[in-house]
Amino acid sequence: MKHSVDWTHDPDLRSWVESANQPDTDFPIQNLPLGVFRRQGMAESARIGVAIGNQVLDLFQAVQMGLLTELPEKLQFACTATLLNPLMALGAEASLHLRHQLSQFLQSSNQPPAFDSGILVPIAEVEMLLPAAIGDYTDFYASIFHATSVGKLFRPDNPLLPNYKFVPIAYHGRASSIVPSGTPIQRPQGQHKQPEETIPTFGPTRLLDYELEVGGFVGAGNKLGQAIALDQAEDHLFGLCLVNDWSARDIQAWEYQPLGPFLAKSFATTISPWVVTLEALAPFRCPAFTRPTDDPVPLPYLASSTNTEWGGIDLILEVKICTARMRAAGMEPFLLSRTSFNQMYWTLAQMLTHHASNGCNLRPGDLIASGTVSGADPGTQGCLLEITQRGAHPLKLPTGEVRAFLLDGDEVIFHGYCEKANYARIGFGECRGIVGIAI
Amino acid sequence: MKHSVDWTHDPDLRSWVESANQPDTDFPIQNLPLGVFRRQGMAESARIGVAIGNQVLDLFQAVQMGLLTELPEKLQFACTATLLNPLMALGAEASLHLRHQLSQFLQSSNQPPAFDSGILVPIAEVEMLLPAAIGDYTDFYASIFHATSVGKLFRPDNPLLPNYKFVPIAYHGRASSIVPSGTPIQRPQGQHKQPEETIPTFGPTRLLDYELEVGGFVGAGNKLGQAIALDQAEDHLFGLCLVNDWSARDIQAWEYQPLGPFLAKSFATTISPWVVTLEALAPFRCPAFTRPTDDPVPLPYLASSTNTEWGGIDLILEVKICTARMRAAGMEPFLLSRTSFNQMYWTLAQMLTHHASNGCNLRPGDLIASGTVSGADPGTQGCLLEITQRGAHPLKLPTGEVRAFLLDGDEVIFHGYCEKANYARIGFGECRGIVGIAI
Repeated sequence: MKHSVDWTHDPDLRSWVESANQPDTDFPIQNLPLGVFRRQGMAESARIGVAIGNQVLDLFQAVQMGLLTELPEKLQFACTATLLNPLMALGAEASLHLRHQLSQFLQSSNQPPAFDSGILVPIAEVEMLLPAAIGDYTDFYASIFHATSVGKLFRPDNPLLPNYKFVPIAYHGRASSIVPSGTPIQRPQGQHKQPEETIPTFGPTRLLDYELEVGGFVGAGNKLGQAIALDQAEDHLFGLCLVNDWSARDIQAWEYQPLGPFLAKSFATTISPWVVTLEALAPFRCPAFTRPTDDPVPLPYLASSTNTEWGGIDLILEVKICTARMRAAGMEPFLLSRTSFNQMYWTLAQMLTHHASNGCNLRPGDLIASGTVSGADPGTQGCLLEITQRGAHPLKLPTGEVRAFLLDGDEVIFHGYCEKANYARIGFGECRGIVGIAI
Repeated sequence: MKHSVDWTHDPDLRSWVESANQPDTDFPIQNLPLGVFRRQGMAESARIGVAIGNQVLDLFQAVQMGLLTELPEKLQFACTATLLNPLMALGAEASLHLRHQLSQFLQSSNQPPAFDSGILVPIAEVEMLLPAAIGDYTDFYASIFHATSVGKLFRPDNPLLPNYKFVPIAYHGRASSIVPSGTPIQRPQGQHKQPEETIPTFGPTRLLDYELEVGGFVGAGNKLGQAIALDQAEDHLFGLCLVNDWSARDIQAWEYQPLGPFLAKSFATTISPWVVTLEALAPFRCPAFTRPTDDPVPLPYLASSTNTEWGGIDLILEVKICTARMRAAGMEPFLLSRTSFNQMYWTLAQMLTHHASNGCNLRPGDLIASGTVSGADPGTQGCLLEITQRGAHPLKLPTGEVRAFLLDGDEVIFHGYCEKANYARIGFGECRGIVGIAI
């Protein structure tokens, strides 16, 4: 478990990039998330960057200029790629090594002589791309609160299925349609059928929803046929991002039996572009969710004292909406939910171990999402299906508008951050998407 | 629809590669399937090849030697790649162009002067690799006979769900664990629970099965947000292979609700290495499956007269088994089923159109499998679950051995071929895998 805190987490560290020293920044020197960017309007190819304050440190440039020569050559080489996959493949030790080096390089005490190198680019001037080539995308269902309340809507007689407390339930998602934050989302068409109709209709979804999730990128992979022990699972996890698993609820309800969701989800999945490494999150590790005493204990392959003690992450997640009318009126996005990732029934390590337990090979850059993060209480639910009870209780916005599900022009914005006394705030940046009309 | 027959299908064409002129070959000059191979024991990288009789024509070498200069440069370049993806991306017209050129080059009348070029390699001396980088793998459920008989076992009260006759049901599969024919299959571990048990057990599957399927490789892709009209669907389909979607039935029964199969399938999927192009299959196109008169007609986006008339493929599929005892006794593999792909409720074009109907982008090299191909009658069923009725009626082998499900040491072998009067036989080669013990 990557829960050991070291000097890179020292809240007193300051950077020579001044914007990184603002208390409200998502990207202080204690964070150092990695992403892939392209300078706006330049044909230049994609590059790996590190977010620091309101700037991106261009790792390709840094390596070219010989600023990271203390790193092993293969690590330097991986930093010059156009995707994070080669870096992810190098595993947990390399990841830590890079973090230490970057933290040192960016400290105020090490301010380099002025150079007009283009090594820093304002975030506002770059286009963020997908951080990795995502070979396979897996979506879990790890919030028992979400599973129970959605289960009630789809199967009132049978909300939580008997396997839930034993199996970290998941399905394979569609990798091709994963897009970076900011990409417009086209309302999908599909088949839907009202209970009173005898045949389905094909047309734009009427029940478009978001799902607030946390994604984990696989770092070092495992070979086909080789399982991953629970206490080693996090060595295979590179870092986290935010995921919006857009969902068409009417298409889902009609298509999902017996093989699970398919077109209801595969039209688009948005991810936040900065990958916050597990190393950066170490100070915010916490015990795994405490199961009610009469719940079964996990099977041995999914149980360890380290997982119980450190498997959680105290990560706050927020969902906001901004409708076309709110934008026109210059209003701020409206908060729909605030919840915590430490309420998940299964930890990321358990998801990963379960995933590989049949010998399935995970590859660097594969994405594992948590499933909708919902808490038990109102205001902590991660999708409109739950908040409005499938539209039965539409929510009211400050403009007077109501929403059962998303309308065209609605923008959905996720934020994620870790905060606690005596530590710098670690933010995830944004995961946003605006809904456009079906074509 | 790629159903027009031209001179390349002329049964009288003969090749200067003598083995291609044997009537029982899978790979006459009328076939010309593409694959990726490596010469055994050589460090040389992977190359694209064409199967011709018992030989592989090395396309890299052919281009290097200037033997395909009549092809456009980008098509020649795609032939020198180490995977078929670039060739697939060029689309249907390029595919046809290449076929014509290869057919011409390989005809007896065009026998080149003798050269010791290594342009031909015996199939027996090559290792076949995956033909493409498979970005996403989708598995359909398009045999109504399979869906009904499996449905009876899992849901006796509710075998065929109400959506089946409207929706080409599918789920996303795992791309990372797709392996080429011949790769040993490790018996997976997982959770399973007998009805009388209160908690599940983790251990090797007790109900390992194969599933006989046909796979379609996507050629030219579509952009995110762009649907594909039914009558254009086959322009996005490069060619076909055989697929064994190995399944652990006990893991599947316990995990599959509510999100579908996951670890029960993701431990391995075997494909045959030669991609038979749709162009080669043109003479064997046939009407789509005739729906019983009281079945609903497909929704308009899934209906066209061309699809009704030409959407089927008259492809015969066979499953054989060879147990360790049979091998030791030098016995031939034993035929378990023979069935036809023209009995599928949904055509490949309908699957592809449905897949993209929500705007989901398909990419060159994506794999779309049909789901288990089963007919209505005994002897035509594509998995043991159906044949033995979940083990209730174990089958008897010539050795006296019985099988409810697969045991360690069993080898499963699929064949596929098209045959009719006045046309050369078009074969798919083999899709085989031997079951090894769990580790």
